[in-house]
Amino acid sequence: MKKLTIPKSVVQEMMKNDFFSQWLGIEVMDVTEGTCKLKMRIKKDMLNGFGIAHGGIAFALADSALAFAANSRNKKSLVLDANISFLAPVKEHDQLYATATEVNITNRTGIYNISVTNQDDKLIAVFKGIVFRKSENWFPDQE
Amino acid sequence: MKKLTIPKSVVQEMMKNDFFSQWLGIEVMDVTEGTCKLKMRIKKDMLNGFGIAHGGIAFALADSALAFAANSRNKKSLVLDANISFLAPVKEHDQLYATATEVNITNRTGIYNISVTNQDDKLIAVFKGIVFRKSENWFPDQE
Amino acid sequence: MKKLTIPKSVVQEMMKNDFFSQWLGIEVMDVTEGTCKLKMRIKKDMLNGFGIAHGGIAFALADSALAFAANSRNKKSLVLDANISFLAPVKEHDQLYATATEVNITNRTGIYNISVTNQDDKLIAVFKGIVFRKSENWFPDQE
Amino acid sequence: MKKLTIPKSVVQEMMKNDFFSQWLGIEVMDVTEGTCKLKMRIKKDMLNGFGIAHGGIAFALADSALAFAANSRNKKSLVLDANISFLAPVKEHDQLYATATEVNITNRTGIYNISVTNQDDKLIAVFKGIVFRKSENWFPDQE
Repeated sequence: MKKLTIPKSVVQEMMKNDFFSQWLGIEVMDVTEGTCKLKMRIKKDMLNGFGIAHGGIAFALADSALAFAANSRNKKSLVLDANISFLAPVKEHDQLYATATEVNITNRTGIYNISVTNQDDKLIAVFKGIVFRKSENWFPDQE
Repeated sequence: MKKLTIPKSVVQEMMKNDFFSQWLGIEVMDVTEGTCKLKMRIKKDMLNGFGIAHGGIAFALADSALAFAANSRNKKSLVLDANISFLAPVKEHDQLYATATEVNITNRTGIYNISVTNQDDKLIAVFKGIVFRKSENWFPDQE
Repeated sequence: MKKLTIPKSVVQEMMKNDFFSQWLGIEVMDVTEGTCKLKMRIKKDMLNGFGIAHGGIAFALADSALAFAANSRNKKSLVLDANISFLAPVKEHDQLYATATEVNITNRTGIYNISVTNQDDKLIAVFKGIVFRKSENWFPDQE
Repeated sequence: MKKLTIPKSVVQEMMKNDFFSQWLGIEVMDVTEGTCKLKMRIKKDMLNGFGIAHGGIAFALADSALAFAANSRNKKSLVLDANISFLAPVKEHDQLYATATEVNITNRTGIYNISVTNQDDKLIAVFKGIVFRKSENWFPDQE
């Protein structure tokens, strides 16, 4: 049986108890050290009073991508601050993709960009997040 | 029968189709021109892989507060950009409160601060949002 | 001779080599643990192509206020991230005031709000900054 | 004599009265519709109390890049909101480069990313700005 990489093991462990990401229907497409790609589909329960996806939905998808990308380096990492710009409306049944890339890491902090696109590859939101990197690991370092 | 104020009528209208705010269990405690106060309780489905509330939950509560406060002025208003700082973890069964205040409005834009506190009045997140104010009204101006 | 408080000593020490704050003409009105109040006047050299103060000027004033408020706690603190909203234009000869307040501090991070007002007490910008708090002190702890 | 492009004409016009960008020593390396590239060198007057460049300097450079990139489309555009993350210290005599790219524009708003690098091509700050696009032009549309 093939052994998972550290990044994949961390995210598998995180997803197990991440009931909100499960409710959102988030699927992990890929994860490597410092990056990750997720997808999800918009359901009726995710709409707001304008009949489009609530801003919290694209944010939550991006925030999960941030958490997975940051923690993938095996250091427990907590989100301190996030910023999102909403560029285009998201409709029911749309498929969303979140792609996280690492801008910069130091011993204690990390900055990540997440782009959110839809099934037509249209950019619907851009997100930047800052994490605090604890000294605690997910798995022993020399596994 | 007492007639609702414009701000309350707008938010009632918005909440009717805001299925995500309904799923979150958001209750509108108060709304006036440019302000609003909401509450909700944290359920198991809102937790993340650390066993605390997913960052998307406090964001979504604040984002709803922003939308209601901005639209309460009877101008359809869309969120352009939002920033959130997470100050303390939120646990299952916690009661959250979001209080929106208006920092500044111009003809076309508005800036709002939202503070999110818990049942112990502890500040758990601060949020700032920028909206674009369309020329379209929710209700005729001289109702 | 009256001994300066730790916050005032730190800021005096910082200002000594802060040539840009000196160029801006920043005066320290007050500083206590976690707060500070500054003022400065807009000169012609601070204007942009629209004939109003360049955005970098209000930012720099707020950034100095952030640095002084955060370092006043005697822990060397570096700005990680800052956000500013510009609310009203600033003109030549305007007097600006920056007031920094502490939103939250942890062992390693701090969040501060800075409001920038003019001589008519009009809010012209709101600023939020996040600092990383190093373990190094400005002065020995038990001075 | 070769006629300047609209983007170059706008920026030339803006720079003429932009006394702060002149004080900073900003040079325009390139400008096209929605993009621009600037450079400047760090002088002693730009340092802060830590002996490195004041945060307002990288911000101001990025803010000028934002203004030039946004206005290059011949619509007078004002900065509403900006966010900057500081990634590495900047020292006296460093050469800084700012590169602005357009993330998204609508009729009334625009979002731009600006990266700031030094002479070693090291990323020292990332900046995101939101502008409001007025209906007023810099030059008649059919010049």
